[in-house]
Amino acid sequence: MGKVTMGPQTLMYPMPATLVGANVNNKPNFMTVAWCGIVNSEPPMISVAIRHNRYTLKGIRDKLIFSVNIPSRDLVKETDYCGIASGSKANKVEVCQFKVFYGKLNDAPLIEQCPINLECKVVHILDLGSHSLIVGRIEETYISENCLTDGKPDVNKIEPFVYTRTPSQQYQAFGEVIAKAHSIGAELKVSK
Amino acid sequence: MGKVTMGPQTLMYPMPATLVGANVNNKPNFMTVAWCGIVNSEPPMISVAIRHNRYTLKGIRDKLIFSVNIPSRDLVKETDYCGIASGSKANKVEVCQFKVFYGKLNDAPLIEQCPINLECKVVHILDLGSHSLIVGRIEETYISENCLTDGKPDVNKIEPFVYTRTPSQQYQAFGEVIAKAHSIGAELKVSK
Repeated sequence: MGKVTMGPQTLMYPMPATLVGANVNNKPNFMTVAWCGIVNSEPPMISVAIRHNRYTLKGIRDKLIFSVNIPSRDLVKETDYCGIASGSKANKVEVCQFKVFYGKLNDAPLIEQCPINLECKVVHILDLGSHSLIVGRIEETYISENCLTDGKPDVNKIEPFVYTRTPSQQYQAFGEVIAKAHSIGAELKVSK
Repeated sequence: MGKVTMGPQTLMYPMPATLVGANVNNKPNFMTVAWCGIVNSEPPMISVAIRHNRYTLKGIRDKLIFSVNIPSRDLVKETDYCGIASGSKANKVEVCQFKVFYGKLNDAPLIEQCPINLECKVVHILDLGSHSLIVGRIEETYISENCLTDGKPDVNKIEPFVYTRTPSQQYQAFGEVIAKAHSIGAELKVSK
């Protein structure tokens, strides 16, 4: 049947590249997280998986508050940097020239330049082995005004991107629209 | 500062469109899951968030085994269909003409047509409100032989796609490469 086994692999498409923020030792810090996604709708929740020794995790565990910021493609260099540098050594906010603002929660630093910002309160922390899985309740959503069309978030203005690991580690833009969702599948529904 | 608040929203880019499989009442069934992602590296783990009343969830809770199948763009119609139909009423495998195979685990149905298949054993189930968050240990990874280049998964052959919800619900291909990861950010590291 033309299948090859590879052993247990963390092989997934697409992966995001988000900037997860927390106040660590009273200073805002951000790290790049690809293992991040929505996990609940009522109430809205998101999860982020972070390696135990990461500096940002200290701040999340301490305050039980964090942010998820979705960068646009013009922030690809800063996004990559926040994944390879550590807040224990560098002031990433300064290096990246992030403009940090705060919303409803005191300890969720948000990046003004990112089109979407989610403020989150920790509701669960699961130790899975190498990583802590943090589940957060989304308390507020911010979007840059210029990324709206008729009051709705517009993917063409947000210009998010995808993190791809194989065959080479790279960031890719969103491409052409293939089909309308919750729609094209109905053709199969009708035919049976 | 040009930001608009939207209240708590499940707003995330990119989201995948995966086909999560389980044997329900001894028959393979698949549902489309956008809230799915890697959560641990050692050992490899993945999470899927599924609304409590979904048919597939019964099979996962019963056998504590499931699969995650990553479709390529030529399966976009079938992928959409598996999100709008229920296995309690339709035989989705038959409608979609999926060729189902089994690997190491007895109860993880895998779709041959999907370039990537992950066999998973449940290690945690978290009730978050509307959804159950299932964390699974990846026991084996299968890839279609024709999606490899020099023995490595090749995104250009896999042709995965992204699920986008706003402003309209649609599926998008992966687009142009913007930058090399773990690389372009180093420019900022050097400059400081």
